[in-house]
Amino acid sequence: MARIEARILKGFRDYLPEVEGARLRMLDVVRGVFEGFGFGPLQTPAIEYADVLLGKYGEEGDKLLYRFRDNGDRDVALRYDLTVPLARLVGQYHGQMRWPFRRYQMAPVWRAEKPARGRFREFMQCDADVVGEADPRADAEIMMVGLSVLKALGVPDFVMRVNDRRVLDGVLDVVGVEAGTPRVLVLRTVDKLPKIGRDAVIAEIVAQVGLSVADCARLLDLLDRSLERVDQLGPLREALAESDVGKAGIDGLTELLATVSAAGFGGQVAIDLTIARGLDYYTSTIYETFLVGHEEYGSVMSGGRYDTLMDTFSGKATPAVGISLGVDRLLAALIELGLLATRPAPADLYFCLFDAADYGSVVQAATALRAHGLKVETALSPAKLGKQIQNASKRGYRYVAIAGAAEIAEGVVQIKDLTTGSQTERRLDAAAKWAPGLAFGVAGEQITPSGVSED
Amino acid sequence: MARIEARILKGFRDYLPEVEGARLRMLDVVRGVFEGFGFGPLQTPAIEYADVLLGKYGEEGDKLLYRFRDNGDRDVALRYDLTVPLARLVGQYHGQMRWPFRRYQMAPVWRAEKPARGRFREFMQCDADVVGEADPRADAEIMMVGLSVLKALGVPDFVMRVNDRRVLDGVLDVVGVEAGTPRVLVLRTVDKLPKIGRDAVIAEIVAQVGLSVADCARLLDLLDRSLERVDQLGPLREALAESDVGKAGIDGLTELLATVSAAGFGGQVAIDLTIARGLDYYTSTIYETFLVGHEEYGSVMSGGRYDTLMDTFSGKATPAVGISLGVDRLLAALIELGLLATRPAPADLYFCLFDAADYGSVVQAATALRAHGLKVETALSPAKLGKQIQNASKRGYRYVAIAGAAEIAEGVVQIKDLTTGSQTERRLDAAAKWAPGLAFGVAGEQITPSGVSED
Repeated sequence: MARIEARILKGFRDYLPEVEGARLRMLDVVRGVFEGFGFGPLQTPAIEYADVLLGKYGEEGDKLLYRFRDNGDRDVALRYDLTVPLARLVGQYHGQMRWPFRRYQMAPVWRAEKPARGRFREFMQCDADVVGEADPRADAEIMMVGLSVLKALGVPDFVMRVNDRRVLDGVLDVVGVEAGTPRVLVLRTVDKLPKIGRDAVIAEIVAQVGLSVADCARLLDLLDRSLERVDQLGPLREALAESDVGKAGIDGLTELLATVSAAGFGGQVAIDLTIARGLDYYTSTIYETFLVGHEEYGSVMSGGRYDTLMDTFSGKATPAVGISLGVDRLLAALIELGLLATRPAPADLYFCLFDAADYGSVVQAATALRAHGLKVETALSPAKLGKQIQNASKRGYRYVAIAGAAEIAEGVVQIKDLTTGSQTERRLDAAAKWAPGLAFGVAGEQITPSGVSED
Repeated sequence: MARIEARILKGFRDYLPEVEGARLRMLDVVRGVFEGFGFGPLQTPAIEYADVLLGKYGEEGDKLLYRFRDNGDRDVALRYDLTVPLARLVGQYHGQMRWPFRRYQMAPVWRAEKPARGRFREFMQCDADVVGEADPRADAEIMMVGLSVLKALGVPDFVMRVNDRRVLDGVLDVVGVEAGTPRVLVLRTVDKLPKIGRDAVIAEIVAQVGLSVADCARLLDLLDRSLERVDQLGPLREALAESDVGKAGIDGLTELLATVSAAGFGGQVAIDLTIARGLDYYTSTIYETFLVGHEEYGSVMSGGRYDTLMDTFSGKATPAVGISLGVDRLLAALIELGLLATRPAPADLYFCLFDAADYGSVVQAATALRAHGLKVETALSPAKLGKQIQNASKRGYRYVAIAGAAEIAEGVVQIKDLTTGSQTERRLDAAAKWAPGLAFGVAGEQITPSGVSED
């Protein structure tokens, strides 16, 4: 075959084992929390009919779809998120569902966005949703799932900032911003407040929807970011006296935070009236989550209630609330903050091979060690000890096992610690005791075998 | 939004939680074995430049690509397997690699095939490969990885049937089938032998490449399916006296099986001279794996050595050998043979709610149980006991927890077993002892709490 240039599409990336290993360990923890709350795993296809996906994300979203004609000339597209495929599925199986339907899904999504630092055309989403339950206890549960994920991942301090779209609608009613596109534009701009600041937000809104500077200022005064507790919302409720939807939003927030607090999760939750969320389909509760002291990562987890999206497919009122993890952001944060270790070695232990004739014995010894949960790479080519140790070291190993067929037949193996240079004879039949000491732990630490008693 | 018909593309499917849960448990085991042998996880993009994928699968394969123009008018396609993306990656990072490079990848692939029973347009592949090692010990290792997967999954009896493309080439040389397309057609037809039988294979080959019936018969006589052990290959080696490649194949098979046997895996391996494998890129060792007594599932795991594919990208000799699991076949087989349990309930325990005011306490109790690894669904709507038990039962639960705020404050909860009707009072602070008894085990069995001592 002619030579072909090995290259990857812009905006896409490979996850090599060192990072992918850490990513999988992170996702294992996330999955454990989701399942712990009774959320079942779901998979849906990457490709859907285009009309299933179109019109749910707003105009901008539609433009970012990977849309094409398949070999049967069907108009299809790659999924843009996991929420609309869920809505499609719920519509399709509506009659057979048991409510509430709690599901999680971890899968890639595709968006034809202009690539930028931290923005890719393919990225993993990791969502948990409760479908078919309108009660705010479902909102509270989803928030607690998210908070439990960060706790399980060992994040020391984080805060989920919560708002209600109805409060925003009340404020926009009072200030006099029309429903529809102007409101969407204003909300998107308000969302940028922490990034671009008050003055820039006012200037942008004035230019976009022709609101007066005074009304803009009033809008931002009402959406006061310093109000973080429900007991501070009295004056806002009075200012929204004319707006039933606004008052309903404030009452909803009040009830939601009371529920979350009674369940023991109040310490990680705060109100933030400027949280707006970009997507069109949210109807009440919305939230974003930040690592305290590391807000530069942006929101690592966000979502909200969307009570009308499902109806598009089912034709029946199907309330829903969900949360989505920013897998890439969270992964970068965990690694950079030292909460998730990566390591270059593909296994815990490198088993040397000195003579090709010993290979069968070496594999048998490795099989015995694997039975104790140790990950063992066995050398495939025989070489002298120095060469093998050099090789193991280059591959990132701390521990090597040294033994020929004769030693293995006697049930012994030498374990050399390449960081200390120490070498200890170990019995294979006592591996249950010493092998765990060589394993790469969840927190990434390796325990020296000297801390483990022999036989 | 206007109502949209909720439907899925033909040849695609959703995995609902009951099946997806089982699938994930199966894949966890597979991943554990791969990592135990020192294979690191890898992810590559779903979309690649079309020219990267084209020409590697043969003409037929190219036709089955999901190929389209992206928003930047690039000629792109969805991956058809995980091997060619690996070859692309190895070509791209060739200079930075540590050899041998062992990686596994579990990810969906797409083929625009005519859907049929058990044949989908999107399906998961699950591959392990060793790249950069020409020694047959790498072939042996990959075979042992595959055999270890089936063992870890609890499959009672299975056999990996092994052949060498060079033996087939030798036989085709001797019988007089030209290299190129005729040879590919003959091999594909020989591959169907167990399915369509000797006579149909002869008829098809005669029609396709114009071989005489006598030569066809000689071909099938040489590829005698009853030869399963290396010590039976002497007469074939003599028949291939004129073919260096054929003799090299027989010697390779002989060495490979000796290595696998010395490592303790000989019992699950047999020679099968009719194994041919459809893909063009294999160069020597090839294998397929069957569940003994359940051959109707077809090969659940197959692969081989492909020593030239990687060179297309790297321009350097980069030998490789790999194995691919048929995830869907294996999943169907494990469930149908009772080796992998599915269960309708999304968690281990359903926690009732009698009064909305108790919700905070119920969540706190559930949090305590989750800390002991129990999966707990908490009711979101209060209801009377009978209604809740009915609800839990419909959702597939065996165990429900019954407690109000007062009981939880005293640290107790009633656990009711819906299959026996028995109810036991349990202390939350002793959950470490009794909670594991309610959990859905790996093998799917649930242990009754009566078998666990109280406090």
